Amino acid sequence: MEKFQNDILEWLKDNRARGARLLQKLVQENSTRGNESSAQAIIIEKCRRLGLQLDIWEIDDDHLFQHPAYCSDRNDYKGNPNVVGILKGSGGGKSIILNGHIDVVPVGDHKTWIHEPFSGHIENGRLYGRGATDMKGGTVALLMAMESLIALDIKLKGDVIFQSVIEEESGGAGTLAAVLRGYRADGAIIPEPTNLRIFPKQQGSMWFRITVKGRAAHGGTRYEGVSAIEKSVKVIERLQDLEKERNDKIIDPLYKKVPIPIPINIGKIHSGEWPSSVPDTAVIEGRIGVAPEEEMASAKAEMEQYLFGLQKEDDWFSKHPLQIEWFGGRWVPGSLETDHPLMNALTDSFFKRMNTAPIIEASPWGTDGGILSTIADTPVVVFGPGITETAHDANEYIALEDLYKASEIIALTLLNWCEVDN
Amino acid sequence: MEKFQNDILEWLKDNRARGARLLQKLVQENSTRGNESSAQAIIIEKCRRLGLQLDIWEIDDDHLFQHPAYCSDRNDYKGNPNVVGILKGSGGGKSIILNGHIDVVPVGDHKTWIHEPFSGHIENGRLYGRGATDMKGGTVALLMAMESLIALDIKLKGDVIFQSVIEEESGGAGTLAAVLRGYRADGAIIPEPTNLRIFPKQQGSMWFRITVKGRAAHGGTRYEGVSAIEKSVKVIERLQDLEKERNDKIIDPLYKKVPIPIPINIGKIHSGEWPSSVPDTAVIEGRIGVAPEEEMASAKAEMEQYLFGLQKEDDWFSKHPLQIEWFGGRWVPGSLETDHPLMNALTDSFFKRMNTAPIIEASPWGTDGGILSTIADTPVVVFGPGITETAHDANEYIALEDLYKASEIIALTLLNWCEVDN
Repeated sequence: MEKFQNDILEWLKDNRARGARLLQKLVQENSTRGNESSAQAIIIEKCRRLGLQLDIWEIDDDHLFQHPAYCSDRNDYKGNPNVVGILKGSGGGKSIILNGHIDVVPVGDHKTWIHEPFSGHIENGRLYGRGATDMKGGTVALLMAMESLIALDIKLKGDVIFQSVIEEESGGAGTLAAVLRGYRADGAIIPEPTNLRIFPKQQGSMWFRITVKGRAAHGGTRYEGVSAIEKSVKVIERLQDLEKERNDKIIDPLYKKVPIPIPINIGKIHSGEWPSSVPDTAVIEGRIGVAPEEEMASAKAEMEQYLFGLQKEDDWFSKHPLQIEWFGGRWVPGSLETDHPLMNALTDSFFKRMNTAPIIEASPWGTDGGILSTIADTPVVVFGPGITETAHDANEYIALEDLYKASEIIALTLLNWCEVDN
Repeated sequence: MEKFQNDILEWLKDNRARGARLLQKLVQENSTRGNESSAQAIIIEKCRRLGLQLDIWEIDDDHLFQHPAYCSDRNDYKGNPNVVGILKGSGGGKSIILNGHIDVVPVGDHKTWIHEPFSGHIENGRLYGRGATDMKGGTVALLMAMESLIALDIKLKGDVIFQSVIEEESGGAGTLAAVLRGYRADGAIIPEPTNLRIFPKQQGSMWFRITVKGRAAHGGTRYEGVSAIEKSVKVIERLQDLEKERNDKIIDPLYKKVPIPIPINIGKIHSGEWPSSVPDTAVIEGRIGVAPEEEMASAKAEMEQYLFGLQKEDDWFSKHPLQIEWFGGRWVPGSLETDHPLMNALTDSFFKRMNTAPIIEASPWGTDGGILSTIADTPVVVFGPGITETAHDANEYIALEDLYKASEIIALTLLNWCEVDN
């Protein structure tokens, strides 16, 4: 066992450049929503070379579209497949799903990027570009871990099921499709950017859209109208209060270092068409975090009820109630016992590689882990390279050193969890 | 004189239906910015039938584009002409410009309109549709006033210069083009919707665009970013404070019935592209009112200075200063002595028709009057039918009765101002 471990660590050390090159190629393909195909093509080619048993399919399944956990406003998945590559075990060992998503969020304001958003530029050990951290870096860590076993001809008993899914950033339809296609396992690792911390609990989240009504008027007599922007400020402040109330209640020690365990993020506001008109409508979009053990429905109800309270403060809202929609992204929260065998396998591997105990926390964001744990009954741990400070941000990057470490720890975990058959 | 006056009032009474029909046709043509041509075609046809000396031209003049008062973000005026129709006087009388704009603001949220926005639907004496009040109703009042003189074969000494201009809602490039083409006169009436009050002073206004920076982050760790929306709320509140300060200083008795003499209207805010990302940029657009005797430049400087004060409250703004642009619309304020002969002519005519004295106030909004008075040295009074409560709003309408009254009062004013030569 010790021998295998050392061989793996050595092989991965010798092949770091391969990992960096693969990540660079992946980052250089813009895989924002609806454009996932060219990055998936690189994944497919890699899986083929590794000799994995490939399953490539486009989402188009009424069973999925009608599933209660399906939530997406996307109509067309054509040409942008999910990819699964299986390293079959000899039998008798525990299986594992290694799940990464290929979709990345939009680049935001181009001007704030120092290098092109999809440059894959490497400088001082960092690889830059949208998706480098969230989460093509994690995906490369998975593939390199698997490649080390294959290159060293180490046979496992349990199956290793690698998944490169679409739609994680928009509600998890890709992972849900994989679950409904039958993929489940004795455990799963999702290498989202935890900065090498181990997250047995994952925050859930939901997207909301709030439509705020005003009454139009000429801007020169704006007192004759009611500004949807001014009313939106009240809604925003109300959501800030709700965030505070909800987070004051979180006492889980796994969240003790997280400033806001379950944030309410206001991601968009659009209102008005003319500088000198009073705007008659504003649309606010955002996401509300759901605690690991909380029901999605109860978080929804709490927010709706809380916003309803605006009617007491301001009569306008009684006469023109807010429209609240729950649309697009929805991530089921997940929770695993901290002493689950998968936690132990990962923690042991971490210690072996790092000579120190891992930090164990709760995930501050939603992942596809909720779908795997609640719908596929698959115990999930989120653990990966990269820091969330850069995810979704301009100048997103990953420290390659962390990617290599994650890859090594995951490879050791596969050895431990799936067992060697040599 | 009495005879002419009575003939005019009688003719206008007999021909009210013509006015309503003309307005209906005009409202049914969508003449939002860039689409003015079909409504102008109706104006041209009407002027042609009245036998006016027509001048139709498309704006395309470097002299104009380089004029300090020119401000527009429009690149293409092709196909959407300005129209001037002159009723030549026999000489020796005072000339007058009758100026109306054909452009209308966008319709806003379609769903809040009971009838189609360009229906021209008539019900209970009201004609509905975008532009009915602002200001096709006023334009029809002008044309009917002129038609009464022509139909009755009443010859005037002074020229009556009717103008149907574009771009009033976007900064007055249409009227400025007419001024630079040489049109000026001894006086001018602009029948914007004053609800038959007389406005010798006009508020000026300017459009602004404020770009607020944030720092993007994943919404689940939103505390790692800085929300451009949250920072925008501070900017909005600061602008509200500035509005209060500026208006507290207005002591002109003409403004005593106006709740906010020189409003700051926040007309638009756009921020964010993704519900679960912290938005890194917000763009706020609005208009600031400028007092009749205030310099545009000093209002600008005051607002810039005031916003600069945010840096003391919040260090973020020191490191990421607001970008303030003055773009698009800009309306020069104007001011006429309340005892100017044009005021007297209009006031006398008002009394003749209404048997009561008019209400004299200051305009709560900018008009093209500032351009006429400051650049063409033409004394301007703003006086017209319609109420601003409906201008720029959904379900804009005009009470036809008011349009008829305005038309009658303006016809009597022409008689008085330009003098009869019969």
